[in-house]
Amino acid sequence: MLAEPHFNRHPGFWKMLTVAVFMALLGCLQAQEHQGHVSIILLGATGDLAKKYLWQGLFQLYLDEAGKGHSFSFHGSALTTTEKGQEFMAKVLESLSCPKDVAPPRCAELKDQFQQLSQYRHLKTSEDYLALNKDIEARVQREGLWEAGRIFYFSVPPFAYADIARNINSSCRPGPGAWLRVVLEKPFGHDLLSAQQLATELGSFFQEEEMYRVDHYLGKQAVAQILPFRDQNRKFLDGLWNRHYVERVEIIMKETVDAEGRTSFYEKYGVIRDVLQNHLTEILTLVAMELPHNVSSWEAVLQHKLQAFQALRGLQKGSAVLGQYQAYSEQVRRELQKPDSFHSLTPTFAGILAHMDNLRWEGVPFILMSGKALDERVGYVRILFKNRAYCAQSEKHWVTDQSQCLPRQIIFYIGHGELGSPAVLVSRNLFRPSLPSKSWKEVEGQPGLRLFGRPLSDYYVYSPVREQDAYSILISHIFHRRKGSFITTENLLASWVFWTPLLDSLVHEVPRIYPGGAENGHLLDFEFSGNQLSFSQQQLEQLVPGPGSVPKPSDFQVLRAKYRESPLISAWPEELIAKLANDIEATAVQAVRRFGKFHLALSGGSSPIDLFQQLAMGHYGFPWAHTHLWLVDERCVPLWDPESNFQGLQAHLLQHVRVPYYNIHPMPVHLHQRLCAEEDQGAQIYAEEISALVTNSSFDLVLLGMGPDGHTASLFPQSPTGLDGEQLVVLTKSPFRPYDRMSLSLPLINRARKVAVLVMGRMKREITTLVSRVGYEPKKWPISGVLPASGQLVWYMDYEAFLG
Amino acid sequence: MLAEPHFNRHPGFWKMLTVAVFMALLGCLQAQEHQGHVSIILLGATGDLAKKYLWQGLFQLYLDEAGKGHSFSFHGSALTTTEKGQEFMAKVLESLSCPKDVAPPRCAELKDQFQQLSQYRHLKTSEDYLALNKDIEARVQREGLWEAGRIFYFSVPPFAYADIARNINSSCRPGPGAWLRVVLEKPFGHDLLSAQQLATELGSFFQEEEMYRVDHYLGKQAVAQILPFRDQNRKFLDGLWNRHYVERVEIIMKETVDAEGRTSFYEKYGVIRDVLQNHLTEILTLVAMELPHNVSSWEAVLQHKLQAFQALRGLQKGSAVLGQYQAYSEQVRRELQKPDSFHSLTPTFAGILAHMDNLRWEGVPFILMSGKALDERVGYVRILFKNRAYCAQSEKHWVTDQSQCLPRQIIFYIGHGELGSPAVLVSRNLFRPSLPSKSWKEVEGQPGLRLFGRPLSDYYVYSPVREQDAYSILISHIFHRRKGSFITTENLLASWVFWTPLLDSLVHEVPRIYPGGAENGHLLDFEFSGNQLSFSQQQLEQLVPGPGSVPKPSDFQVLRAKYRESPLISAWPEELIAKLANDIEATAVQAVRRFGKFHLALSGGSSPIDLFQQLAMGHYGFPWAHTHLWLVDERCVPLWDPESNFQGLQAHLLQHVRVPYYNIHPMPVHLHQRLCAEEDQGAQIYAEEISALVTNSSFDLVLLGMGPDGHTASLFPQSPTGLDGEQLVVLTKSPFRPYDRMSLSLPLINRARKVAVLVMGRMKREITTLVSRVGYEPKKWPISGVLPASGQLVWYMDYEAFLG
Repeated sequence: MLAEPHFNRHPGFWKMLTVAVFMALLGCLQAQEHQGHVSIILLGATGDLAKKYLWQGLFQLYLDEAGKGHSFSFHGSALTTTEKGQEFMAKVLESLSCPKDVAPPRCAELKDQFQQLSQYRHLKTSEDYLALNKDIEARVQREGLWEAGRIFYFSVPPFAYADIARNINSSCRPGPGAWLRVVLEKPFGHDLLSAQQLATELGSFFQEEEMYRVDHYLGKQAVAQILPFRDQNRKFLDGLWNRHYVERVEIIMKETVDAEGRTSFYEKYGVIRDVLQNHLTEILTLVAMELPHNVSSWEAVLQHKLQAFQALRGLQKGSAVLGQYQAYSEQVRRELQKPDSFHSLTPTFAGILAHMDNLRWEGVPFILMSGKALDERVGYVRILFKNRAYCAQSEKHWVTDQSQCLPRQIIFYIGHGELGSPAVLVSRNLFRPSLPSKSWKEVEGQPGLRLFGRPLSDYYVYSPVREQDAYSILISHIFHRRKGSFITTENLLASWVFWTPLLDSLVHEVPRIYPGGAENGHLLDFEFSGNQLSFSQQQLEQLVPGPGSVPKPSDFQVLRAKYRESPLISAWPEELIAKLANDIEATAVQAVRRFGKFHLALSGGSSPIDLFQQLAMGHYGFPWAHTHLWLVDERCVPLWDPESNFQGLQAHLLQHVRVPYYNIHPMPVHLHQRLCAEEDQGAQIYAEEISALVTNSSFDLVLLGMGPDGHTASLFPQSPTGLDGEQLVVLTKSPFRPYDRMSLSLPLINRARKVAVLVMGRMKREITTLVSRVGYEPKKWPISGVLPASGQLVWYMDYEAFLG
Repeated sequence: MLAEPHFNRHPGFWKMLTVAVFMALLGCLQAQEHQGHVSIILLGATGDLAKKYLWQGLFQLYLDEAGKGHSFSFHGSALTTTEKGQEFMAKVLESLSCPKDVAPPRCAELKDQFQQLSQYRHLKTSEDYLALNKDIEARVQREGLWEAGRIFYFSVPPFAYADIARNINSSCRPGPGAWLRVVLEKPFGHDLLSAQQLATELGSFFQEEEMYRVDHYLGKQAVAQILPFRDQNRKFLDGLWNRHYVERVEIIMKETVDAEGRTSFYEKYGVIRDVLQNHLTEILTLVAMELPHNVSSWEAVLQHKLQAFQALRGLQKGSAVLGQYQAYSEQVRRELQKPDSFHSLTPTFAGILAHMDNLRWEGVPFILMSGKALDERVGYVRILFKNRAYCAQSEKHWVTDQSQCLPRQIIFYIGHGELGSPAVLVSRNLFRPSLPSKSWKEVEGQPGLRLFGRPLSDYYVYSPVREQDAYSILISHIFHRRKGSFITTENLLASWVFWTPLLDSLVHEVPRIYPGGAENGHLLDFEFSGNQLSFSQQQLEQLVPGPGSVPKPSDFQVLRAKYRESPLISAWPEELIAKLANDIEATAVQAVRRFGKFHLALSGGSSPIDLFQQLAMGHYGFPWAHTHLWLVDERCVPLWDPESNFQGLQAHLLQHVRVPYYNIHPMPVHLHQRLCAEEDQGAQIYAEEISALVTNSSFDLVLLGMGPDGHTASLFPQSPTGLDGEQLVVLTKSPFRPYDRMSLSLPLINRARKVAVLVMGRMKREITTLVSRVGYEPKKWPISGVLPASGQLVWYMDYEAFLG
């Protein structure tokens, strides 16, 4: 039974309904009223960008919006004289084009209207700006309008920003109730510091909400579709968009052109600043961010974008491969009048491996790549999914949209390339995607065309109903205050925080030279191993003897000798660490075989970090489940303090291997919420724990270091505790911050079955020489007191420490 | 300068040299002496296996060894009468073939010799065995030989083993100085128990070293090459053979034949026992084991194989997909005279996902698959490497042996299939492998042939110089005491330990019916997600209403209601856990946003395990780095005890997420090497820790359970502590083992911002009903005392607990 219509409403209902109807009516009437006047001032109106994109974008804005109640005026301005400027503008405005569906007579009419509303003016001095302001106000008044707002579009080099910004702020702000928007074009600084300075400077003139920083990639249709696509296909993507399913993400922008004619800019910036720090990074965050509940809330998008930045693992020198096309240096010499001997180090090609340290993306490689003088012009984001299937039939029976063994991928095709237009591609064996049908249409494949290893017919392919230029789209977003498509200050600085350390580390890096175009062959292919990226092919020949001609570690043999009458193993650092790691593993395997467990006491400091990484990454047979980890010494700071020795152990070893929680024995330096208080008896507690778990308190292996003052563990020269006596664990003082320490004592160390002392680096040369000559003098040089009673002592020294 | 030859040796040198020359001479003379007589008794000499492979293998042995000093006699035996047996044997011996390089006259001569040495004898009673023994002894004496040893080859059904073994042991052991070898054919039991019984029984008659259990796959040339290949290509494989590089391992045996004519055997065993438990598992261990230093030491190989078994993660029901070809049940009905209503559940197809829990292989899927009535006959092991490269050029420029973006794989091709012969294939973009050139030769690809997604020309392909039958190879190994190619008792039982729980769990599993041959389409494709395997395609229709027609959890809505005046969330278990996990994540995100951290106290027991797994695997946004984990209660056992609540937390949650070490707060039940001693003040220490770190000692979320007696946390009815008072943490007694517990107190629990009580399962039905009616009576029902002072209480109950 259906319920009867219900007319006996509560009286309040009718009242509410009346109000609602009235409000709707009001909205309707207002829409037909005048929405106010908008002045758009294009600074740099005679530049390339303006000529190519911005005037057309403004014309498009006029076409889209003029009928909807706003009135407009367009002011082109530059440093050019009024006469020349006017001439230039007239030319540009004449060349504007209408959308295809506008008939030529109507187009001519519209262009004419637009030209009427546009004028050139010379803008240089503060008087010029005052005059501009006055003219706008006069016009608004004259025509009986009210002012809605002003847009200043900075299409000028960044050095001009401050001056213009100051003038706008002091002379060209619209009156109360009207808004001001300033649009800024990259570069937004050169590194974190310069970006901060620029941001601070601009911030002294404009509110954050007034600034629109353009990254024109955010106006590209395929890029702008990433978040809506993720949103509208949640039901398929919710389970797929994570490390369990995604194999890799590729974010690529390849160019065929080179930097000729632009080297004065390019030489200062290079490919990372030009393309990766902005365009590709923005795309990365759109792919990687946690999807906000409401993707049309730009505040939520920004929030999630910033979280994505926070999850990005820091880049290191090894995260990048760099190239430079062969002709570049010559172009720079010619264009910038450099001497013949000049060789540029500016990269024109870069491949980057990024990782996100969060549960969604941990372990998934994000590959960013861009370069000039490559074999094709194309931009795309490719999400390749893991093959998690086994197909029981032989391949010849596989059916495209059913076989889960064929590649599964989603591609946001930004443009150019073999497809020639923006597109979203989804493998047919994945799912049929949903895209907004007003703006995207499904298209048929071009026969014979293959993309990403598969014929185009393997994909669902969607293209924009109407292809639009990025700038037209962004100008419309500015007008409508859609801030989500622009770079906020926070966003910008987060990106520089991410990129600057890498850029700094690459300053002296010599890029690989490549011939350009299809001839590059496999020269620029690169591959990753852990966090490290490297070119797949060895450099075939080295024309100039560069740093590569220095002998490699593997060219040397590990040297066996004696030091202080104990075995000495000496090698280049890499080899030495590998040898030590192998020896530790062998000791561990033997101990576990004999006793069922392995007690390892480790020192803190920087030298063991490489060792920890080596053990974590390369030693598959290491019996971690049966290993107990002890600390040789600890600083009296909470365990979570970055200065804590335990922190280094946790970050570089424990995170990567599976040691049971209760086999980990941090020193109890933090009891009852205080640090190394005598009364808390932390040293005694640790000693008891050792006595209880380690047979005879005899560690299977103790790893020590040696300080430039001859200290070892946290036993410093003249220490009143720990150098002798009965105590197994002691509190000590360091001459360096943090002063308070806890340390195993020499008597305990000397009970170990094996003691390894790792000494690395040039800084240790003097003490190494000195200690080689002294006898048993632990008061002066605690390291000289390391003499295992019945165990073995082995010295591991790199050539820098030993040979010097 | 070269050194002069040095003739002035120490006098001892000449003495040593003389001894060495003498020893060599002796060895040479001995080789030409008689090596002793070997009797080979083939039991079941008239069976299929004997006819097809074993006689030929024995003939081959004779050809290979007869000239080298041994003399032989071959005894075929069976239950057949002497006359019939002799007739049969004559036929078989007549059909034997020589290797291709033996000329027909010579072959006839050799066959004649072999026939002379072979005789049939009826072997049934113990008298028969006594007679056999006597005959062998008489012959040896008569011919003036000495006896080297005897080989008894059991080519008989396993039920006959015991009787034969007893007779051999009591009557047919050779005299002192001569060896006995018994060769056994699978099946070696039906599950762990039966395999153990059979092994014990055999062990009462034979020494381990006397037994040779045959897995004829170990005689297949490609399989036998796995370890030597790994050994000889160490320099390439050392870095590659691990989880960082290997994408997956496929171990596959596909058959086109079905089980017709063999259903009496097959119906009892099925595909897993027939193929996976033995052949494919052996291959798995050869691929996965740590490579022994010396691969020709069979003791070392066995040792490493057993370690590989230990690292195998236990299989669960979800680790398998099962199929049965459509005609199978009808064949069984016909061959075994079953009624028309009979439907077999025996699988004829299985796909298995195995994982190794060690650092080398963690996360790498090992896919085992075998089936009858498939589209092709083929066997292979395929190691597919990860694609870790990005290729900067468009695909059309890729060169096969240079591009690291093309698939990289190593395949041990066991036989049949499109290649038609055994082979080892290595992708050309990987490395050029080294194989023993005496036995393996590089071969050219057949034009047009594609294997594993690539043309054959993409691989280095090696084939055996001489193709040999597995049984010939194994018989030679038995003769030469090469035990590494056989299954030791330890090895066998380790395999059953691995497979039996899965087989038990699958007893009632209904296999997917498939039509057979190419028509299977994608019906048998399967895929994995975590540990779970499932068919890629949904079953299209369900003809018989099976268990699948029961409503699925997602068919129901989560029900919201009240229980004890607090919100109640009720659903099917899966849905309920998902909801609770979502709620916990939401609470965590909110807490971290507001306070920078999230304090979560978790209960032990079995109910939360699913929750832990859900949180570990599906919640990418969970702020683990800022979460503190506390225990609601703990048993007074060491943390590493399997009964410890902490263990459950570690195994199911902590291993999978990154919670910093110092954010984990196990209860201090184990201080000073004793458990929950009052004097150690563990409860006070925990209370202090809570007070110090948790603002107002108010946890953000406490997760509780409810026992059938109304207990919660470790607060049991009538507990003298913890139900009221000031203590935050208390020691309590449980009516169940282990009796001693530590628990948060009710007053502390009630300070929480949120308390969630999870109640699941039919066992909780009564208490759920009871507790719904009682008021605040914590002495009787501690759960009734859970009433957060200012926080929120929510009940999560599954339908079984709630609706009953």
